[in-house]
Amino acid sequence: MITIYGMLDSGNCYKPRLLCALLGIPFCHVEVSMLDGGTKRPDFVALNPKGQVPLLVLEDGRRLSESNAILVYLGEGSRFVPAEPFENARMLQWMFFEQNAHELSVAMRRSLTVYEERRHLATPERMADLLARGEAALVVMERQLAEAPFLVGEEPTLADLALYAYTHLAQEGGFDLSRCPAIRRWLGRIEALPSHRPLTWLPEPDAA
Amino acid sequence: MITIYGMLDSGNCYKPRLLCALLGIPFCHVEVSMLDGGTKRPDFVALNPKGQVPLLVLEDGRRLSESNAILVYLGEGSRFVPAEPFENARMLQWMFFEQNAHELSVAMRRSLTVYEERRHLATPERMADLLARGEAALVVMERQLAEAPFLVGEEPTLADLALYAYTHLAQEGGFDLSRCPAIRRWLGRIEALPSHRPLTWLPEPDAA
Repeated sequence: MITIYGMLDSGNCYKPRLLCALLGIPFCHVEVSMLDGGTKRPDFVALNPKGQVPLLVLEDGRRLSESNAILVYLGEGSRFVPAEPFENARMLQWMFFEQNAHELSVAMRRSLTVYEERRHLATPERMADLLARGEAALVVMERQLAEAPFLVGEEPTLADLALYAYTHLAQEGGFDLSRCPAIRRWLGRIEALPSHRPLTWLPEPDAA
Repeated sequence: MITIYGMLDSGNCYKPRLLCALLGIPFCHVEVSMLDGGTKRPDFVALNPKGQVPLLVLEDGRRLSESNAILVYLGEGSRFVPAEPFENARMLQWMFFEQNAHELSVAMRRSLTVYEERRHLATPERMADLLARGEAALVVMERQLAEAPFLVGEEPTLADLALYAYTHLAQEGGFDLSRCPAIRRWLGRIEALPSHRPLTWLPEPDAA
């Protein structure tokens, strides 16, 4: 069975768990937190020298980091990956947007808001900058989702899961989604997918 | 023929041009700069509402943004893309790392250093933060490249091109590569690839 090292409250770590739930892929969860120094402990750094979660470890010991690369590997050949090359590239376009424009604003602002351990980093200037950049990223999503039910078109792809992870937590970072009706309808569509599970879901021990 | 809208001095815009050079893909370049407001002009925003370059436009009008997604689309089936799914995911792992940890530190610090238009954003605190985060990203690369000639192993992939773009310009952002011998040897290996072309290269008009 595969193992996913992750922090239960992290959107990046939620992505592969959510995909596993949707696809019925069994996995073992190992909790490693960035808040208590767990990601920097020698035993974990030996697995991932970057000291980051999530980390996927295959049964044969091969390791993969970066949440969106893990999604692509686990989603290979599934209904969440377009077979047509241009549609596949459009999916990746949104996933790169997520790791560049979105995660470093929407997710970062939530992190500096909800984790007491990080609040000393939340200077007014930084929070204002993160708000402006996060709102700009949400505008990009809103525009797209006003035109199609999912980011790449009619069907959900890995891009929707990647962007759902932190967008559905955006209000915890102080972002006002009441001005984003298309995003809110899209969040509902993701949550209505069969076998959708919430952020802190873990498989039953005996099922894993 | 495909069209690549881009700013000649941008590493992100260099990526697809470099891949086209290496693979012999003809393209038409249209210069659009973020420095003179070109990326925010209505005619360009009509093509890419994000107001960002590079932008790939296919002959039939379909459009793709995000430099690394463009690499994946143009590189499909080429020698720079591993066919084996796990190796392909490892390539993407480095490409997501590039857009998250590397581009927003190494590239950003260069941008705030070399472009007069942006120097008012280069506060001492911000430059110190970018230096620390950029150096950490370079350490991750140095560690990997001390063990293998290219990021995913024995052969160059799109990940090497994606990370080459701003790493070969890192010194312009104040990063000291003299402490990164493995990175410097790797830069030399990329530059020795047949048909490698430098940052500001453009195809001859009659060949395009």
